[in-house]
Amino acid sequence: MLASNGGGVKKTAPEAARAGSAVAQIVSVRGSDPQRRGGATLDRLVALLERDLDRVNTLILERTQSPVALIPQLAGHIIAAGGKRLRPMLTLAAARLCGYPGDRHIALAAAVEFIHTATLLHDDVVDASDLRRGLATANAVWGNKPSVLVGDFLFSRAFQLMVEDGSLEVLAILSSASAVIAEGEVLQLVTSNDTETTEAAYLQVIRSKTAQLFAAASKIGAVLAERPRTEQEALESYGLNLGIAFQLIDDLLDYSARQAELGKTVGDDFREGKITLPIVVAFGRGSEDEQRFWRRTLEELRQEEGDLEHAIELLRTHGALAETLERARTYGAAARAALAPFRDCPEKRALDEVIDFCLERGF
Amino acid sequence: MLASNGGGVKKTAPEAARAGSAVAQIVSVRGSDPQRRGGATLDRLVALLERDLDRVNTLILERTQSPVALIPQLAGHIIAAGGKRLRPMLTLAAARLCGYPGDRHIALAAAVEFIHTATLLHDDVVDASDLRRGLATANAVWGNKPSVLVGDFLFSRAFQLMVEDGSLEVLAILSSASAVIAEGEVLQLVTSNDTETTEAAYLQVIRSKTAQLFAAASKIGAVLAERPRTEQEALESYGLNLGIAFQLIDDLLDYSARQAELGKTVGDDFREGKITLPIVVAFGRGSEDEQRFWRRTLEELRQEEGDLEHAIELLRTHGALAETLERARTYGAAARAALAPFRDCPEKRALDEVIDFCLERGF
Repeated sequence: MLASNGGGVKKTAPEAARAGSAVAQIVSVRGSDPQRRGGATLDRLVALLERDLDRVNTLILERTQSPVALIPQLAGHIIAAGGKRLRPMLTLAAARLCGYPGDRHIALAAAVEFIHTATLLHDDVVDASDLRRGLATANAVWGNKPSVLVGDFLFSRAFQLMVEDGSLEVLAILSSASAVIAEGEVLQLVTSNDTETTEAAYLQVIRSKTAQLFAAASKIGAVLAERPRTEQEALESYGLNLGIAFQLIDDLLDYSARQAELGKTVGDDFREGKITLPIVVAFGRGSEDEQRFWRRTLEELRQEEGDLEHAIELLRTHGALAETLERARTYGAAARAALAPFRDCPEKRALDEVIDFCLERGF
Repeated sequence: MLASNGGGVKKTAPEAARAGSAVAQIVSVRGSDPQRRGGATLDRLVALLERDLDRVNTLILERTQSPVALIPQLAGHIIAAGGKRLRPMLTLAAARLCGYPGDRHIALAAAVEFIHTATLLHDDVVDASDLRRGLATANAVWGNKPSVLVGDFLFSRAFQLMVEDGSLEVLAILSSASAVIAEGEVLQLVTSNDTETTEAAYLQVIRSKTAQLFAAASKIGAVLAERPRTEQEALESYGLNLGIAFQLIDDLLDYSARQAELGKTVGDDFREGKITLPIVVAFGRGSEDEQRFWRRTLEELRQEEGDLEHAIELLRTHGALAETLERARTYGAAARAALAPFRDCPEKRALDEVIDFCLERGF
């Protein structure tokens, strides 16, 4: 094995410059977007849900308590780091969009966040093979067992919250979503380091591992409000399409200068050999030489200095990032269309803006 | 760090001889047991539940299916290896003991087994620190991520089965048990390598990580049958005490010749620095020199050849294994007493024999 890139390498200047040109290309595609809005944020949504969100946060804090001190410590750390509370906000906003007048959305939003946090913790788990590649952060290296067990605790807490709520319908939606998420994570593992991964397989992974929880979180808002099946399905479709768009942008960002500006590392997926849509596109359009490059770097994980920069250059040459953005916008449009049946109201406008926020993170 | 013992070292002849003398001592204690029965097995229980158990196994197989092939592969492997189906049999037998005439115990027994299997899979996860000590099996080394994710899948499936069953009471019992199990596992992690661990802390660990699921599995049999609270609690108490006895014997077996006869390795807990009751007893009764030995081997994990043999010798000298067995028998007696309110019937006799089986595994 050749020299490893090491874990979490920060961007070098030339890498930023090249990534910059890829982003410039994306921006030019985006310039033609008739739906384009400037600087979408979650502010509208947060403002609208502020009081509910406070209650969700209080409940989260309360329910991570345990006589075993390591649990609230570790859970508190990851929940605080998790940050934006996007998924529970979908539950809160969907419930309000459907005119739900009660309190039950608070506990269910907390349950959604617990499931998400458990998934994050279990995602942190690394294998010996990762360690050998020098990929793991110190935190991940020392924390496999606590990550798994605290994740299990939070997952159980999520179900306890749902059981207290008492809706078997909500329990069915979220337990089924949890099973699909796990299936998606396993599928991702199977496709990892396989450059022959098809776009269909990739979409299956992100639909399962990411979009399923967005869909369930949104749908239960309508279930709570006892709205007809068509509205439940409309919100489910909104969440599903939003989640796919969200993950596509996430995967694009891993190769983008914007990511570096946000203080995150670029190229994590590359270093792990994760096969995302930009790679699927560039591999498919690549010459034999290029395909050999992708196999060496992503399948065999023999990565040399300059490989990430070359990868970004190839993604740019083949328009793979622009294509990924375009795809994300298609799913974003589907999410927007799913909201059509609902009357205009602040919640609808806020949920609409979430789509723009997800799409514009890339810039 | 000194030479590691390596993973899964098989017994050497002198080790077997010494462990043998420890067992001889235990047997002499056991000889005074008025409740003593010869060669208790699970045969009576298995024979009684054969048809139900077949249905549980079929359902387990059915519900581990997934389009992601790795899931049924890995789940099938661990479920087959798990073997005796003790926990789901508790649900089946308890339901029948309570005169339950329906079918619902089948799916709930499968749910119990799924929760147990998920816990086993998550227990397999190893940390980099374990690897550095050379403790991990090849399987565990390569399988962290699949173990976690397939565990999550089975855990979700367990909840799906319960949701289909539709009893919020059962869901409450098993989701709460799951949270307590995770707490117990974290507590075990915290007490690991700490020779100052008290007996109370140790008991808290095994009550949570092991006995809680035995208790829940037994209790839901009475819940299904809609029996009064006193009977539900009697079965819960039976399961809890049985589970504690079971784990005490498990911890004793890790230092016993019997374990080697069963084809399992001796000293796994020792090599990991796991603090179990035999250690708590021997440490408390040990000289300063001996306490230094325990600190070096279990806290600092600096283990040399001959240390395991010396540890077994110390456990024997201080009667720590006999004491552990005695404690297990006390819990076994409590489990037996908990069955008293039930009428004599084949199920009651079978559940009674489970206690003997758990206690006699040590011989």
